[in-house]
Amino acid sequence: MLLRFTKMHGLGNDFMVIDLVTQYARLTQEKIKQLANRHFGIGFDQLLIVEPPTKPDVDFKYRIFNADGSEVEQCGNGARCFARFVRDRKLTSKRTISVETQGGDITLIVHNNNTVEVDMGQPILEPALVPFQARQQAITYPIQCNNQAFDVSAVSMGNPHMVLLVEDIHQAHVEKWGPLLEKHESFPQRANVGFMQVINSQQIKLRVFERGAGETLACGTGACAAVVAGRLQNLLAEQVQVDLPGGSLQIEWQGSGHSVRMIGPATRVFEGQVRI
Amino acid sequence: MLLRFTKMHGLGNDFMVIDLVTQYARLTQEKIKQLANRHFGIGFDQLLIVEPPTKPDVDFKYRIFNADGSEVEQCGNGARCFARFVRDRKLTSKRTISVETQGGDITLIVHNNNTVEVDMGQPILEPALVPFQARQQAITYPIQCNNQAFDVSAVSMGNPHMVLLVEDIHQAHVEKWGPLLEKHESFPQRANVGFMQVINSQQIKLRVFERGAGETLACGTGACAAVVAGRLQNLLAEQVQVDLPGGSLQIEWQGSGHSVRMIGPATRVFEGQVRI
Repeated sequence: MLLRFTKMHGLGNDFMVIDLVTQYARLTQEKIKQLANRHFGIGFDQLLIVEPPTKPDVDFKYRIFNADGSEVEQCGNGARCFARFVRDRKLTSKRTISVETQGGDITLIVHNNNTVEVDMGQPILEPALVPFQARQQAITYPIQCNNQAFDVSAVSMGNPHMVLLVEDIHQAHVEKWGPLLEKHESFPQRANVGFMQVINSQQIKLRVFERGAGETLACGTGACAAVVAGRLQNLLAEQVQVDLPGGSLQIEWQGSGHSVRMIGPATRVFEGQVRI
Repeated sequence: MLLRFTKMHGLGNDFMVIDLVTQYARLTQEKIKQLANRHFGIGFDQLLIVEPPTKPDVDFKYRIFNADGSEVEQCGNGARCFARFVRDRKLTSKRTISVETQGGDITLIVHNNNTVEVDMGQPILEPALVPFQARQQAITYPIQCNNQAFDVSAVSMGNPHMVLLVEDIHQAHVEKWGPLLEKHESFPQRANVGFMQVINSQQIKLRVFERGAGETLACGTGACAAVVAGRLQNLLAEQVQVDLPGGSLQIEWQGSGHSVRMIGPATRVFEGQVRI
Protein backbone atom coordinates (compact mmCIF):
# COMPACT_ATOMS: atom_id res chain seq x y z
CA MET A 1 0.00 0.00 0.00
CA LEU A 2 1.34 3.41 -1.00
CA LEU A 3 1.02 6.04 1.73
CA ARG A 4 1.34 9.77 1.00
CA PHE A 5 3.14 11.85 3.62
CA THR A 6 4.70 15.29 4.09
CA LYS A 7 8.04 15.97 5.75
CA MET A 8 7.95 19.21 7.79
CA HIS A 9 9.91 20.94 10.52
CA GLY A 10 9.37 23.58 13.17
CA LEU A 11 12.74 25.22 13.87
CA GLY A 12 14.52 21.98 12.97
CA ASN A 13 12.31 19.73 15.12
CA ASP A 14 11.29 17.47 12.25
CA PHE A 15 8.16 15.49 11.50
CA MET A 16 6.62 12.97 9.15
CA VAL A 17 2.98 14.05 8.84
CA ILE A 18 0.35 11.58 7.64
CA ASP A 19 -3.25 12.32 6.70
CA LEU A 20 -5.37 9.43 7.95
CA VAL A 21 -8.57 11.32 7.15
CA THR A 22 -8.41 10.49 3.43
CA GLN A 23 -6.01 7.51 3.69
CA TYR A 24 -6.05 4.28 5.69
CA ALA A 25 -3.04 2.72 7.41
CA ARG A 26 -2.36 0.67 10.48
CA LEU A 27 0.97 1.72 11.95
CA THR A 28 2.42 -0.58 14.60
CA GLN A 29 5.09 0.58 17.07
CA GLU A 30 7.61 -1.55 15.16
CA LYS A 31 6.64 0.11 11.85
CA ILE A 32 6.96 3.62 13.36
CA LYS A 33 10.47 2.76 14.60
CA GLN A 34 11.41 1.61 11.08
CA LEU A 35 10.01 4.78 9.49
CA ALA A 36 11.81 6.96 12.08
CA ASN A 37 15.24 5.50 11.28
CA ARG A 38 17.26 8.17 9.47
CA HIS A 39 19.37 5.67 7.47
CA PHE A 40 16.93 2.83 6.76
CA GLY A 41 13.65 4.80 6.82
CA ILE A 42 12.31 8.32 6.37
CA GLY A 43 13.77 9.80 9.55
CA PHE A 44 12.00 12.11 11.99
CA ASP A 45 11.88 13.26 15.60
CA GLN A 46 8.10 12.67 15.78
CA LEU A 47 5.36 11.21 13.62
CA LEU A 48 2.21 13.37 13.47
CA ILE A 49 -1.09 11.71 12.53
CA VAL A 50 -4.19 13.59 11.43
CA GLU A 51 -7.38 11.63 12.16
CA PRO A 52 -11.07 12.51 11.97
CA PRO A 53 -12.42 13.93 15.26
CA THR A 54 -14.09 11.51 17.70
CA LYS A 55 -16.38 14.23 19.13
CA PRO A 56 -18.47 17.02 17.60
CA ASP A 57 -16.79 20.23 18.86
CA VAL A 58 -13.31 19.79 17.32
CA ASP A 59 -12.01 19.70 13.74
CA PHE A 60 -9.44 16.90 13.96
CA LYS A 61 -7.82 14.37 16.24
CA TYR A 62 -4.05 14.84 16.44
CA ARG A 63 -1.77 12.01 17.57
CA ILE A 64 1.98 12.22 18.18
CA PHE A 65 4.47 9.36 18.25
CA ASN A 66 8.15 9.54 19.20
CA ALA A 67 10.83 7.88 17.08
CA ASP A 68 10.74 4.86 19.42
CA GLY A 69 7.07 4.33 18.58
CA SER A 70 5.70 5.49 21.94
CA GLU A 71 2.70 7.85 21.88
CA VAL A 72 3.10 11.25 23.59
CA GLU A 73 0.62 13.92 24.65
CA GLN A 74 1.97 17.15 23.29
CA CYS A 75 4.51 18.76 20.96
CA GLY A 76 4.46 22.52 20.38
CA ASN A 77 6.57 22.51 17.21
CA GLY A 78 4.47 19.63 15.91
CA ALA A 79 1.21 21.47 16.57
CA ARG A 80 2.32 24.33 14.31
CA CYS A 81 3.20 21.90 11.52
CA PHE A 82 -0.09 20.06 12.06
CA ALA A 83 -2.05 23.29 11.54
CA ARG A 84 -0.19 24.23 8.37
CA PHE A 85 -0.53 20.66 7.04
CA VAL A 86 -4.33 20.43 7.35
CA ARG A 87 -4.66 23.77 5.52
CA ASP A 88 -2.09 22.96 2.80
CA ARG A 89 -3.77 19.59 2.21
CA LYS A 90 -7.14 21.41 2.08
CA LEU A 91 -8.54 19.22 4.86
CA THR A 92 -9.94 22.47 6.26
CA SER A 93 -10.16 26.09 5.12
CA LYS A 94 -10.43 27.44 8.69
CA ARG A 95 -7.66 29.62 10.13
CA THR A 96 -8.64 28.79 13.72
CA ILE A 97 -8.48 25.04 14.14
CA SER A 98 -9.53 23.12 17.24
CA VAL A 99 -7.88 19.79 17.80
CA GLU A 100 -8.26 16.96 20.27
CA THR A 101 -4.99 15.49 21.59
CA GLN A 102 -4.10 13.00 24.31
CA GLY A 103 -3.09 16.04 26.38
CA GLY A 104 -6.48 17.75 25.98
CA ASP A 105 -8.06 19.97 23.31
CA ILE A 106 -5.92 22.73 21.79
CA THR A 107 -6.63 25.66 19.48
CA LEU A 108 -4.28 26.54 16.62
CA ILE A 109 -4.40 29.80 14.64
CA VAL A 110 -2.73 30.00 11.22
CA HIS A 111 -1.52 33.57 10.55
CA ASN A 112 -1.23 35.11 7.09
CA ASN A 113 2.56 34.77 6.98
CA ASN A 114 2.31 30.98 7.56
CA THR A 115 3.35 31.29 11.18
CA VAL A 116 1.07 29.44 13.58
CA GLU A 117 -0.10 30.51 17.02
CA VAL A 118 -0.60 27.82 19.63
CA ASP A 119 -2.40 28.24 22.95
CA MET A 120 -0.05 26.31 25.22
CA GLY A 121 -2.32 26.47 28.29
CA GLN A 122 -1.55 27.97 31.69
CA PRO A 123 1.81 27.29 33.33
CA ILE A 124 1.73 25.15 36.49
CA LEU A 125 3.82 26.63 39.31
CA GLU A 126 2.57 24.71 42.33
CA PRO A 127 5.56 22.52 43.30
CA ALA A 128 3.61 19.28 43.90
CA LEU A 129 2.09 19.52 40.41
CA VAL A 130 5.30 20.32 38.48
CA PRO A 131 6.37 17.96 40.20
CA PHE A 132 9.14 19.62 42.24
CA GLN A 133 10.08 18.98 45.85
CA ALA A 134 9.81 22.19 47.89
CA ARG A 135 8.18 23.08 51.20
CA GLN A 136 6.42 26.09 49.66
CA GLN A 137 6.04 27.78 46.29
CA ALA A 138 8.68 30.41 45.44
CA ILE A 139 9.89 32.30 42.38
CA THR A 140 13.26 30.56 42.40
CA TYR A 141 14.67 27.75 44.50
CA PRO A 142 18.27 27.15 45.60
CA ILE A 143 19.52 23.67 44.68
CA GLN A 144 22.90 21.92 44.87
CA CYS A 145 24.35 19.77 42.13
CA ASN A 146 27.88 18.30 42.23
CA ASN A 147 28.79 20.78 45.01
CA GLN A 148 27.71 23.76 42.91
CA ALA A 149 24.80 26.03 43.88
CA PHE A 150 22.08 26.99 41.38
CA ASP A 151 18.98 29.17 41.63
CA VAL A 152 16.32 27.52 39.48
CA SER A 153 12.70 28.06 38.52
CA ALA A 154 10.35 25.05 38.44
CA VAL A 155 7.58 25.35 35.84
CA SER A 156 5.35 22.74 34.23
CA MET A 157 3.90 23.32 30.76
CA GLY A 158 2.35 19.85 30.88
CA ASN A 159 5.92 18.59 31.30
CA PRO A 160 8.38 19.60 34.04
CA HIS A 161 10.95 22.34 33.34
CA MET A 162 13.88 23.65 35.33
CA VAL A 163 15.01 27.10 34.14
CA LEU A 164 18.25 28.76 35.13
CA LEU A 165 19.77 32.13 34.22
CA VAL A 166 23.19 32.23 32.60
CA GLU A 167 25.48 35.13 31.68
CA ASP A 168 26.39 33.81 28.24
CA ILE A 169 24.51 31.03 26.47
CA HIS A 170 27.63 29.90 24.59
CA GLN A 171 29.54 29.37 27.85
CA ALA A 172 26.69 27.55 29.60
CA HIS A 173 28.24 24.02 29.50
CA VAL A 174 24.85 22.52 28.62
CA GLU A 175 26.53 19.22 27.72
CA LYS A 176 28.00 18.97 31.25
CA TRP A 177 25.19 20.31 33.44
CA GLY A 178 22.19 19.18 31.37
CA PRO A 179 22.53 15.45 32.09
CA LEU A 180 23.26 16.10 35.79
CA LEU A 181 20.46 18.61 36.41
CA GLU A 182 17.91 16.59 34.37
CA LYS A 183 18.14 13.86 37.02
CA HIS A 184 18.26 16.17 40.05
CA GLU A 185 16.49 14.58 43.02
CA SER A 186 14.18 17.59 43.50
CA PHE A 187 12.41 16.75 40.20
CA PRO A 188 11.01 13.25 40.84
CA GLN A 189 9.87 12.86 37.20
CA ARG A 190 13.13 14.44 35.98
CA ALA A 191 13.22 17.79 34.20
CA ASN A 192 13.81 19.51 30.90
CA VAL A 193 16.61 21.95 31.71
CA GLY A 194 16.56 25.43 30.14
CA PHE A 195 19.60 27.71 30.12
CA MET A 196 18.37 31.30 29.58
CA GLN A 197 20.39 34.42 28.75
CA VAL A 198 18.34 37.61 29.01
CA ILE A 199 19.31 40.04 26.23
CA ASN A 200 16.66 42.61 27.17
CA SER A 201 13.07 42.56 28.41
CA GLN A 202 11.82 41.54 24.96
CA GLN A 203 14.49 39.03 23.92
CA ILE A 204 16.17 35.97 25.42
CA LYS A 205 18.54 33.32 24.12
CA LEU A 206 17.72 29.78 25.24
CA ARG A 207 19.26 26.32 25.07
CA VAL A 208 17.24 23.37 26.36
CA PHE A 209 18.47 19.95 27.45
CA GLU A 210 15.38 17.79 26.95
CA ARG A 211 14.55 14.95 29.31
CA GLY A 212 15.83 11.70 27.79
CA ALA A 213 16.78 13.36 24.49
CA GLY A 214 19.70 15.71 25.15
CA GLU A 215 20.07 19.23 23.81
CA THR A 216 17.59 19.94 20.99
CA LEU A 217 17.32 22.60 18.29
CA ALA A 218 14.06 24.08 19.60
CA CYS A 219 11.92 23.10 22.57
CA GLY A 220 8.53 24.86 22.41
CA THR A 221 7.42 24.12 25.96
CA GLY A 222 10.93 25.06 27.14
CA ALA A 223 10.57 28.49 25.49
CA CYS A 224 7.24 28.98 27.30
CA ALA A 225 8.67 27.86 30.65
CA ALA A 226 11.65 30.19 30.29
CA VAL A 227 9.47 33.22 29.55
CA VAL A 228 7.20 32.38 32.51
CA ALA A 229 10.27 32.05 34.76
CA GLY A 230 11.69 35.35 33.46
CA ARG A 231 8.33 37.16 33.81
CA LEU A 232 7.98 35.99 37.44
CA GLN A 233 11.43 37.45 38.15
CA ASN A 234 10.36 40.79 36.57
CA LEU A 235 13.00 40.43 33.88
CA LEU A 236 10.71 40.19 30.83
CA ALA A 237 7.84 41.98 29.09
CA GLU A 238 4.55 40.35 27.96
CA GLN A 239 5.89 39.59 24.47
CA VAL A 240 9.32 38.02 24.22
CA GLN A 241 11.37 36.77 21.27
CA VAL A 242 13.06 33.50 22.23
CA ASP A 243 16.15 32.68 20.14
CA LEU A 244 16.76 28.92 20.11
CA PRO A 245 19.53 27.10 18.17
CA GLY A 246 17.00 26.15 15.44
CA GLY A 247 15.43 29.62 15.13
CA SER A 248 13.13 32.04 16.95
CA LEU A 249 9.71 31.81 18.62
CA GLN A 250 7.49 34.61 19.85
CA ILE A 251 6.14 33.83 23.35
CA GLU A 252 3.37 35.87 24.99
CA TRP A 253 2.16 35.60 28.58
CA GLN A 254 0.03 38.23 30.28
CA GLY A 255 0.62 36.65 33.67
CA SER A 256 -1.06 34.48 36.29
CA GLY A 257 -4.44 33.13 35.16
CA HIS A 258 -3.60 33.46 31.46
CA SER A 259 -2.50 30.92 28.87
CA VAL A 260 0.95 31.10 27.31
CA ARG A 261 0.78 31.74 23.57
CA MET A 262 3.50 30.59 21.20
CA ILE A 263 3.87 31.92 17.65
CA GLY A 264 6.36 30.39 15.26
CA PRO A 265 7.08 29.00 11.82
CA ALA A 266 6.00 25.69 10.28
CA THR A 267 8.07 24.65 7.26
CA ARG A 268 7.19 22.14 4.58
CA VAL A 269 10.28 20.28 3.27
CA PHE A 270 9.00 17.70 0.76
CA GLU A 271 6.12 15.45 -0.26
CA GLY A 272 6.66 11.70 -0.29
CA GLN A 273 5.09 8.34 -0.99
CA VAL A 274 6.16 5.24 0.90
CA ARG A 275 5.08 1.61 0.52
CA ILE A 276 4.01 0.18 3.88
CA MET B 1 10.65 24.05 -9.48
CA LEU B 2 9.51 20.62 -8.28
CA LEU B 3 12.22 17.95 -8.42
CA ARG B 4 11.44 14.23 -8.21
CA PHE B 5 13.86 12.09 -6.22
CA THR B 6 14.15 8.62 -4.67
CA LYS B 7 15.53 7.87 -1.22
CA MET B 8 17.51 4.61 -1.17
CA HIS B 9 20.04 2.81 0.98
CA GLY B 10 22.68 0.12 0.65
CA LEU B 11 23.08 -1.58 4.04
CA GLY B 12 22.08 1.66 5.78
CA ASN B 13 24.43 3.90 3.79
CA ASP B 14 21.69 6.22 2.56
CA PHE B 15 21.24 8.26 -0.60
CA MET B 16 19.07 10.84 -2.29
CA VAL B 17 19.03 9.81 -5.96
CA ILE B 18 18.10 12.33 -8.66
CA ASP B 19 17.45 11.65 -12.32
CA LEU B 20 18.92 14.55 -14.29
CA VAL B 21 18.37 12.73 -17.58
CA THR B 22 14.66 13.62 -17.71
CA GLN B 23 14.75 16.55 -15.27
CA TYR B 24 16.79 19.75 -15.08
CA ALA B 25 18.25 21.24 -11.91
CA ARG B 26 21.29 23.26 -10.96
CA LEU B 27 22.46 22.12 -7.52
CA THR B 28 25.02 24.36 -5.84
CA GLN B 29 27.23 23.13 -2.99
CA GLU B 30 25.13 25.26 -0.61
CA LYS B 31 21.92 23.66 -1.88
CA ILE B 32 23.33 20.14 -1.49
CA LYS B 33 24.29 20.92 2.13
CA GLN B 34 20.72 22.11 2.79
CA LEU B 35 19.21 18.98 1.22
CA ALA B 36 21.60 16.74 3.20
CA ASN B 37 20.54 18.17 6.56
CA ARG B 38 18.54 15.51 8.40
CA HIS B 39 16.39 18.00 10.35
CA PHE B 40 15.92 20.88 7.91
CA GLY B 41 16.23 18.96 4.63
CA ILE B 42 15.87 15.45 3.21
CA GLY B 43 18.88 13.91 4.91
CA PHE B 44 21.44 11.58 3.32
CA ASP B 45 25.03 10.37 3.48
CA GLN B 46 25.54 11.02 -0.25
CA LEU B 47 23.64 12.54 -3.15
CA LEU B 48 23.73 10.43 -6.33
CA ILE B 49 23.10 12.13 -9.67
CA VAL B 50 22.23 10.32 -12.89
CA GLU B 51 23.25 12.31 -15.96
CA PRO B 52 23.38 11.50 -19.68
CA PRO B 53 26.75 10.06 -20.76
CA THR B 54 29.35 12.45 -22.19
CA LYS B 55 30.92 9.74 -24.39
CA PRO B 56 29.56 7.00 -26.65
CA ASP B 57 30.62 3.76 -24.92
CA VAL B 58 28.79 4.17 -21.57
CA ASP B 59 25.10 4.30 -20.57
CA PHE B 60 25.16 7.06 -17.95
CA LYS B 61 27.32 9.52 -16.11
CA TYR B 62 27.21 8.99 -12.34
CA ARG B 63 28.17 11.79 -9.94
CA ILE B 64 28.46 11.51 -6.15
CA PHE B 65 28.35 14.34 -3.61
CA ASN B 66 28.97 14.10 0.12
CA ALA B 67 26.65 15.76 2.63
CA ASP B 68 29.05 18.73 2.79
CA GLY B 69 28.53 19.34 -0.94
CA SER B 70 31.98 18.13 -2.04
CA GLU B 71 32.15 15.81 -5.05
CA VAL B 72 33.76 12.38 -4.57
CA GLU B 73 34.99 9.72 -6.99
CA GLN B 74 33.47 6.48 -5.80
CA CYS B 75 30.92 4.88 -3.48
CA GLY B 76 30.30 1.13 -3.64
CA ASN B 77 26.97 1.16 -1.79
CA GLY B 78 25.88 4.09 -3.94
CA ALA B 79 26.80 2.28 -7.18
CA ARG B 80 24.41 -0.57 -6.31
CA CYS B 81 21.59 1.91 -5.62
CA PHE B 82 22.43 3.77 -8.84
CA ALA B 83 22.02 0.58 -10.89
CA ARG B 84 18.70 -0.33 -9.31
CA PHE B 85 17.45 3.27 -9.70
CA VAL B 86 18.08 3.54 -13.47
CA ARG B 87 16.23 0.25 -14.00
CA ASP B 88 13.32 1.06 -11.65
CA ARG B 89 12.93 4.44 -13.33
CA LYS B 90 13.07 2.70 -16.73
CA LEU B 91 15.99 4.86 -17.85
CA THR B 92 17.44 1.60 -19.18
CA SER B 93 16.28 -2.00 -19.55
CA LYS B 94 19.84 -3.40 -19.53
CA ARG B 95 21.02 -5.62 -16.68
CA THR B 96 24.68 -4.84 -17.35
CA ILE B 97 25.14 -1.10 -17.11
CA SER B 98 28.34 0.79 -17.86
CA VAL B 99 28.80 4.08 -16.12
CA GLU B 100 31.34 6.88 -16.24
CA THR B 101 32.40 8.28 -12.86
CA GLN B 102 35.07 10.72 -11.70
CA GLY B 103 37.02 7.62 -10.57
CA GLY B 104 36.87 5.97 -14.01
CA ASP B 105 34.31 3.81 -15.83
CA ILE B 106 32.58 1.05 -13.87
CA THR B 107 30.29 -1.84 -14.82
CA LEU B 108 27.24 -2.70 -12.73
CA ILE B 109 25.22 -5.93 -13.06
CA VAL B 110 21.68 -6.09 -11.68
CA HIS B 111 20.84 -9.65 -10.60
CA ASN B 112 17.34 -11.16 -10.63
CA ASN B 113 16.94 -10.86 -6.84
CA ASN B 114 17.59 -7.08 -6.99
CA THR B 115 21.11 -7.45 -5.65
CA VAL B 116 23.72 -5.63 -7.69
CA GLU B 117 27.23 -6.74 -8.59
CA VAL B 118 29.93 -4.09 -8.82
CA ASP B 119 33.37 -4.56 -10.33
CA MET B 120 35.49 -2.72 -7.76
CA GLY B 121 38.72 -2.93 -9.77
CA GLN B 122 42.01 -4.50 -8.74
CA PRO B 123 43.38 -3.91 -5.24
CA ILE B 124 46.58 -1.86 -5.02
CA LEU B 125 49.17 -3.43 -2.75
CA GLU B 126 52.35 -1.55 -3.71
CA PRO B 127 53.12 0.54 -0.61
CA ALA B 128 53.94 3.79 -2.45
CA LEU B 129 50.58 3.66 -4.25
CA VAL B 130 48.38 2.86 -1.21
CA PRO B 131 50.06 5.16 0.04
CA PHE B 132 51.82 3.41 2.93
CA GLN B 133 55.36 3.94 4.18
CA ALA B 134 57.34 0.69 4.01
CA ARG B 135 60.74 -0.25 2.64
CA GLN B 136 59.30 -3.18 0.69
CA GLN B 137 55.94 -4.80 0.02
CA ALA B 138 54.79 -7.43 2.54
CA ILE B 139 51.60 -9.27 3.44
CA THR B 140 51.37 -7.59 6.85
CA TYR B 141 53.40 -4.84 8.46
CA PRO B 142 54.23 -4.35 12.16
CA ILE B 143 53.29 -0.86 13.40
CA GLN B 144 53.25 0.82 16.81
CA CYS B 145 50.44 3.00 18.07
CA ASN B 146 50.27 4.41 21.63
CA ASN B 147 52.91 1.86 22.72
CA GLN B 148 50.86 -1.06 21.42
CA ALA B 149 52.00 -3.31 18.54
CA PHE B 150 49.72 -4.15 15.60
CA ASP B 151 50.17 -6.28 12.49
CA VAL B 152 48.29 -4.53 9.70
CA SER B 153 47.63 -4.99 6.01
CA ALA B 154 47.80 -1.94 3.72
CA VAL B 155 45.45 -2.14 0.72
CA SER B 156 44.09 0.56 -1.57
CA MET B 157 40.74 0.08 -3.32
CA GLY B 158 41.07 3.58 -4.79
CA ASN B 159 41.19 4.76 -1.17
CA PRO B 160 43.70 3.65 1.50
CA HIS B 161 42.73 0.89 3.94
CA MET B 162 44.43 -0.51 7.01
CA VAL B 163 43.09 -3.96 7.96
CA LEU B 164 43.77 -5.71 11.24
CA LEU B 165 42.65 -9.06 12.62
CA VAL B 166 40.75 -9.17 15.89
CA GLU B 167 39.57 -12.09 18.03
CA ASP B 168 36.11 -10.70 18.69
CA ILE B 169 34.55 -7.86 16.71
CA HIS B 170 32.43 -6.74 19.69
CA GLN B 171 35.53 -6.31 21.88
CA ALA B 172 37.56 -4.50 19.21
CA HIS B 173 37.41 -0.99 20.81
CA VAL B 174 36.86 0.59 17.40
CA GLU B 175 35.90 3.89 19.06
CA LYS B 176 39.30 4.02 20.82
CA TRP B 177 41.69 2.67 18.16
CA GLY B 178 39.89 3.90 15.04
CA PRO B 179 40.67 7.61 15.50
CA LEU B 180 44.29 6.85 16.54
CA LEU B 181 45.08 4.37 13.74
CA GLU B 182 43.30 6.48 11.07
CA LYS B 183 45.98 9.14 11.57
CA HIS B 184 48.94 6.75 11.90
CA GLU B 185 52.10 8.29 10.40
CA SER B 186 52.69 5.31 8.09
CA PHE B 187 49.56 6.28 6.08
CA PRO B 188 50.41 9.78 4.80
CA GLN B 189 46.88 10.27 3.37
CA ARG B 190 45.35 8.67 6.49
CA ALA B 191 43.50 5.36 6.35
CA ASN B 192 40.12 3.72 6.64
CA VAL B 193 40.64 1.22 9.45
CA GLY B 194 39.01 -2.22 9.20
CA PHE B 195 38.68 -4.56 12.20
CA MET B 196 38.17 -8.10 10.86
CA GLN B 197 37.10 -11.22 12.73
CA VAL B 198 37.46 -14.40 10.66
CA ILE B 199 34.56 -16.78 11.35
CA ASN B 200 35.65 -19.32 8.75
CA SER B 201 37.20 -19.25 5.27
CA GLN B 202 33.88 -18.12 3.76
CA GLN B 203 32.68 -15.63 6.38
CA ILE B 204 34.10 -12.62 8.22
CA LYS B 205 32.67 -9.99 10.53
CA LEU B 206 33.92 -6.47 9.87
CA ARG B 207 33.71 -3.02 11.46
CA VAL B 208 35.22 -0.08 9.60
CA PHE B 209 36.29 3.28 10.99
CA GLU B 210 36.08 5.51 7.91
CA ARG B 211 38.56 8.30 7.32
CA GLY B 212 37.04 11.56 8.54
CA ALA B 213 33.63 9.97 9.17
CA GLY B 214 33.98 7.57 12.11
CA GLU B 215 32.52 4.07 12.29
CA THR B 216 29.91 3.48 9.57
CA LEU B 217 27.18 0.89 9.02
CA ALA B 218 28.72 -0.57 5.86
CA CYS B 219 31.89 0.37 3.99
CA GLY B 220 31.98 -1.34 0.57
CA THR B 221 35.63 -0.65 -0.22
CA GLY B 222 36.48 -1.68 3.38
CA ALA B 223 34.81 -5.06 2.80
CA CYS B 224 36.87 -5.55 -0.37
CA ALA B 225 40.12 -4.53 1.35
CA ALA B 226 39.46 -6.90 4.25
CA VAL B 227 38.85 -9.88 1.95
CA VAL B 228 41.99 -9.06 -0.04
CA ALA B 229 43.99 -8.84 3.20
CA GLY B 230 42.51 -12.13 4.44
CA ARG B 231 43.09 -13.91 1.10
CA LEU B 232 46.76 -12.81 1.06
CA GLN B 233 47.14 -14.34 4.54
CA ASN B 234 45.59 -17.62 3.28
CA LEU B 235 42.69 -17.24 5.71
CA LEU B 236 39.86 -16.88 3.17
CA ALA B 237 38.32 -18.59 0.13
CA GLU B 238 37.51 -16.90 -3.21
CA GLN B 239 33.95 -16.07 -2.15
CA VAL B 240 33.45 -14.53 1.28
CA GLN B 241 30.36 -13.24 3.09
CA VAL B 242 31.24 -10.02 4.92
CA ASP B 243 28.92 -9.22 7.83
CA LEU B 244 28.90 -5.47 8.50
CA PRO B 245 26.78 -3.67 11.15
CA GLY B 246 24.30 -2.60 8.40
CA GLY B 247 24.03 -6.05 6.75
CA SER B 248 26.01 -8.46 4.57
CA LEU B 249 27.96 -8.22 1.31
CA GLN B 250 29.33 -11.01 -0.86
CA ILE B 251 32.94 -10.28 -1.90
CA GLU B 252 34.76 -12.31 -4.54
CA TRP B 253 38.44 -12.11 -5.45
CA GLN B 254 40.25 -14.73 -7.48
CA GLY B 255 43.62 -13.24 -6.56
CA SER B 256 46.40 -11.11 -8.00
CA GLY B 257 45.60 -9.69 -11.43
CA HIS B 258 41.84 -9.94 -10.92
CA SER B 259 39.22 -7.38 -9.99
CA VAL B 260 37.38 -7.56 -6.68
CA ARG B 261 33.65 -8.12 -7.17
CA MET B 262 31.08 -6.95 -4.64
CA ILE B 263 27.49 -8.22 -4.60
CA GLY B 264 24.93 -6.69 -2.29
CA PRO B 265 21.45 -5.25 -1.84
CA ALA B 266 20.06 -1.89 -3.00
CA THR B 267 16.89 -0.84 -1.19
CA ARG B 268 14.31 1.74 -2.25
CA VAL B 269 12.79 3.58 0.74
CA PHE B 270 10.44 6.21 -0.71
CA GLU B 271 9.70 8.51 -3.63
CA GLY B 272 9.67 12.25 -3.04
CA GLN B 273 9.13 15.65 -4.61
CA VAL B 274 10.97 18.71 -3.35
CA ARG B 275 10.73 22.35 -4.41
CA ILE B 276 14.19 23.75 -5.18
